Amino acid sequence: MSDHAIPEIEGAVCPLPLVHSEHVLLGHGSGGKMTQDLIARLFLPQFDNPALRAGDDSAVVESINGARFAISTDSHVVWPLFFPGGDIGRLAVCGTVNDIAMMGAQPLYLTAGFILEEGLELSLLKRVVASMQVAAAEAGVDIVAGDTKVVQRGKGDGLYINTSGVGLLNPDIHIGGQYARPGDKIILSGPIGDHGIAVLAARGELGFETGLQSDIAPLNHLVAAMLKVSHNIHAMRDPTRGGLATALNEIARQSEVNILIYETAIPVRPAVGAACELLGFDPLYIANEGKLVAIVAPEDAGCVLTAMRNSEYGLEAVIIGEVCPSPSGRVLMRTALGSTRIIDTLAGEMLPRIC
Amino acid sequence: MSDHAIPEIEGAVCPLPLVHSEHVLLGHGSGGKMTQDLIARLFLPQFDNPALRAGDDSAVVESINGARFAISTDSHVVWPLFFPGGDIGRLAVCGTVNDIAMMGAQPLYLTAGFILEEGLELSLLKRVVASMQVAAAEAGVDIVAGDTKVVQRGKGDGLYINTSGVGLLNPDIHIGGQYARPGDKIILSGPIGDHGIAVLAARGELGFETGLQSDIAPLNHLVAAMLKVSHNIHAMRDPTRGGLATALNEIARQSEVNILIYETAIPVRPAVGAACELLGFDPLYIANEGKLVAIVAPEDAGCVLTAMRNSEYGLEAVIIGEVCPSPSGRVLMRTALGSTRIIDTLAGEMLPRIC
Repeated sequence: MSDHAIPEIEGAVCPLPLVHSEHVLLGHGSGGKMTQDLIARLFLPQFDNPALRAGDDSAVVESINGARFAISTDSHVVWPLFFPGGDIGRLAVCGTVNDIAMMGAQPLYLTAGFILEEGLELSLLKRVVASMQVAAAEAGVDIVAGDTKVVQRGKGDGLYINTSGVGLLNPDIHIGGQYARPGDKIILSGPIGDHGIAVLAARGELGFETGLQSDIAPLNHLVAAMLKVSHNIHAMRDPTRGGLATALNEIARQSEVNILIYETAIPVRPAVGAACELLGFDPLYIANEGKLVAIVAPEDAGCVLTAMRNSEYGLEAVIIGEVCPSPSGRVLMRTALGSTRIIDTLAGEMLPRIC
Repeated sequence: MSDHAIPEIEGAVCPLPLVHSEHVLLGHGSGGKMTQDLIARLFLPQFDNPALRAGDDSAVVESINGARFAISTDSHVVWPLFFPGGDIGRLAVCGTVNDIAMMGAQPLYLTAGFILEEGLELSLLKRVVASMQVAAAEAGVDIVAGDTKVVQRGKGDGLYINTSGVGLLNPDIHIGGQYARPGDKIILSGPIGDHGIAVLAARGELGFETGLQSDIAPLNHLVAAMLKVSHNIHAMRDPTRGGLATALNEIARQSEVNILIYETAIPVRPAVGAACELLGFDPLYIANEGKLVAIVAPEDAGCVLTAMRNSEYGLEAVIIGEVCPSPSGRVLMRTALGSTRIIDTLAGEMLPRIC
């Protein structure tokens, strides 16, 4: 047993019971427990296949000629369409690029499906499309196929964008939520919560100016830099909806390990901390769109951390915890006061339409 | 010059001028001229790349290891969600399977992105998901990745579904809108207009019962049967939004040829004909979801037709015309009365949210 075994757990609250409803609730889109419940009860029993069942950010599939690919899809319904640091277009490209990159795959091709509401200004659409192209060029991907549908006024909200993508996966790379091992280090690429709070501020829900920018960024070059120095990256996630807490819970459950993080090690910008305190939110559950968390073998944690800090979107990377040998699949946090508490998956919906 | 050169053209009306608007109109989702204008003015200048520029039903890309793939995306906003012969789920799967099959590729993997409106009945979603799986199983594809977003009441219309897909393309197959050649025969897989009129009937817009079913079907097995007997299939399209007229115009323009079709050869069910007469529609512009039109070298037209008629979704296949050597890129129709008229691309929007 590792020396990181948990001696005592304070505040080990039972997870909130799931709301069972016969109708779709906003929480079903939270990325947290209600989304997971919907997937488990409704989608998986129908679509069951190994790639989908794996439950990672992308599906890994093999083509007939033996090549391996990562495939991912994301619909984007963020509101408002523009916010400090980004817009729905940049979000749509980076969201799918990052999901593919989290498997260690190189994103190559994206598709873009637009659902436009009648009356949307074409000049606004043009700005969004230009922003998509800037993000695609930065990531080095081509948007090779598109589709446009229009719905009547009042049947949409300006603009929804689906992006799907395909990435090429080196046969030697096996990264997935199920590969975390006791002793692995948890590396976070930078401060959490910027995206969620920046969007909230743009909605005018904070009541004060933060100066905060969303962190939206394509992370594939960061991942490539990490893969260059290590073959022992076991799992990666970009903590979007549901935040860091939910991403780590997914990995802990998939790998049947405990994950221990240190509260004092987790970077949170003062503006994010202040907004969360005001609103009663926990930054661990706030969405990020340009961060990743990596589970890395301890012997490689140093070189991976250095590679991340030398990459544009990993300058503030830090080790925030480690993997512990317990089959309970929990995330635990050693607090600033020295106690340990359970960090559960997001239960309801804190911030609808954050991505 | 072929003996099918056009001696005289009657009713050669100038195409309607495009409506120029600063806002999105329903016509921008028609699949016809306004959609093409939006793509040409707004999307292509940003996303320009060879695969997208080709303008086919799917993008053909090469992966680093030399394999070729067809990639496609479609968002589905059909209303109502259920209609005779199908539902939005079957439509979403078949739509993308067919776009991939039209390049001669074998569809392998689909993704599914759901945008749910708060309040949607989960039992309804369950029926749609089950219908998707039935269609996926029939087509032989796996739905490997998914995404669920929820928008507030009044910001959607129950359920929108994006599907994207990847298919494997044999290196020897080169099918595309640009490959039609003078002398080629035009083969249509069956009667046109069933889907559009079935959905209209489900909306209660006809005022009478038709008994008509949508033709929604996955066409990849039909395409496989055609490819088995011929290496001389030059182009294929599934005539969805914009109908047969728009699909043929796309090919005529891409290949810089004229396409001549015979009115009396084009199969239209009596119920579709009656509904179109009542509403002032032309069946040539009505959406289909289980039909294809193929441009085939004359020496192979017979064997391809036979192969189609031996396949479930090609029983009623017929030759409806041929390709003529003119650079004007027009579609012409020899009418029942012996005159010839220009068949233009769909100009406005006849039936919003038909797919």
